[in-house]
Amino acid sequence: MINRPAMLPSAAREAFRDGLVEPTAGWSRGYAQANVLSIPREYAFDFLLFAQRNPKPCPILGVLEAGETTGPLLAGGDIRTDVPRYTVYRDGVKVDEPTDISGYWRDDLVTFLIGCSFTFEAALQDGGIAIAHIDQGVNVPMYSINRQCAPAGRMSGPMVVSMRPVPASQVADAVRITSRYPAVHGAPVHVGNPAELGIRDLSRPDFGDAVDIPDGHIPVFWACGVTPQAAVMQSCPPLAIGHAPGHMLITDARDSDYLIP
Amino acid sequence: MINRPAMLPSAAREAFRDGLVEPTAGWSRGYAQANVLSIPREYAFDFLLFAQRNPKPCPILGVLEAGETTGPLLAGGDIRTDVPRYTVYRDGVKVDEPTDISGYWRDDLVTFLIGCSFTFEAALQDGGIAIAHIDQGVNVPMYSINRQCAPAGRMSGPMVVSMRPVPASQVADAVRITSRYPAVHGAPVHVGNPAELGIRDLSRPDFGDAVDIPDGHIPVFWACGVTPQAAVMQSCPPLAIGHAPGHMLITDARDSDYLIP
Repeated sequence: MINRPAMLPSAAREAFRDGLVEPTAGWSRGYAQANVLSIPREYAFDFLLFAQRNPKPCPILGVLEAGETTGPLLAGGDIRTDVPRYTVYRDGVKVDEPTDISGYWRDDLVTFLIGCSFTFEAALQDGGIAIAHIDQGVNVPMYSINRQCAPAGRMSGPMVVSMRPVPASQVADAVRITSRYPAVHGAPVHVGNPAELGIRDLSRPDFGDAVDIPDGHIPVFWACGVTPQAAVMQSCPPLAIGHAPGHMLITDARDSDYLIP
Repeated sequence: MINRPAMLPSAAREAFRDGLVEPTAGWSRGYAQANVLSIPREYAFDFLLFAQRNPKPCPILGVLEAGETTGPLLAGGDIRTDVPRYTVYRDGVKVDEPTDISGYWRDDLVTFLIGCSFTFEAALQDGGIAIAHIDQGVNVPMYSINRQCAPAGRMSGPMVVSMRPVPASQVADAVRITSRYPAVHGAPVHVGNPAELGIRDLSRPDFGDAVDIPDGHIPVFWACGVTPQAAVMQSCPPLAIGHAPGHMLITDARDSDYLIP
């Protein structure tokens, strides 16, 4: 039996490379997981600038230059095989969800590794704040909101947020704890009023699963690493490859590397 | 007579646009000043990635896309005229130090605005830590050290650091205060041992002026915004235009915008 929380990142990547397909929540505790986006070099400056202008949804942890398939965040790994499942877009439209992208790979693809809220969720739990979607065994609920990201060149799109219900007495702690992780989405972008974000029904997320919101809990919204894929859908580069939701790259970086004092 | 500390950034930029030439230390107190680098679009991804990989020396505050001469950090301004003095490089060699770059401007130039330690110097002073070069009326001493930045594409170069002597009893405070400003170089990269950085003689800086180091003071080293120009000198793009040392762009952003809780 696999001990997922205790597995080293290199071993986890090897398992996915060898064909295992499952979401990565709970794997390799203490190590940072990353959202992935590979796009052609001709779009790379526009996307990196988009990320620079929208650091809360798109915090860049590392970049593999054109054609590179490995790097220090995935030592000995291969970005074409080490993510459990991918999403392939052509002209902004999803065309495939393969478990290996070797057949799609091109030497002009630049790969961006983007921070993931799994890092601060561990810190929230350590701070005594329960994570509803983990306790309920589902994916985090995510919503496209009525706020556009700052555009950059040909890249534009709405911000996507994730939502976690937090007991009113712990909202301040949740803000304080996550603000110490600016490289993995940081402090919430909004607390308490979904209507102001254009969200009509919290029980119908745009990505992921709905969660129950107990009485006395406040919906708290953080910028989300699905935002780059929403930008791909709006901006329509000829080819783009991301991870499939919840199926992240497990990196060799430690969560604690991203902690600001 | 001009009241430099009280002048609004827009008025300061207008004064420089109208021909005033002087260093900007002490101008527009409370507003962030920026290092400037304009390079051709074909080098823009490499440089933005260089900055992403070296965030301590190259924290990006904003980017003007190819051909843009103004933006939200310099509302109503013009990047070709609003810096008091510029440095022009061709193939990595300094060729001019004009006060207006309209004659060099090209529509493919992308401009990077990079955080400046003037922001955290104000916070250090507010924290009761004297700044030697300010008190001694000279420019901060800067040194190219024996540590190379992480390269990106065609961009590479040594890290440049600035040095401030700090009383031993206040070193911890200086670290704590500057670590709260990660967007303007953040915490020191080194404390106390210049030889380990390859600095043989603190009295002979590579840029700026030497300062006296009183007994009981420790030399503390921060990453410096001159690093991008050192990378230009090593990497030799066909054209690059920076600010002249100490002659910064005064932006509309407030120092407090860059404070992490």
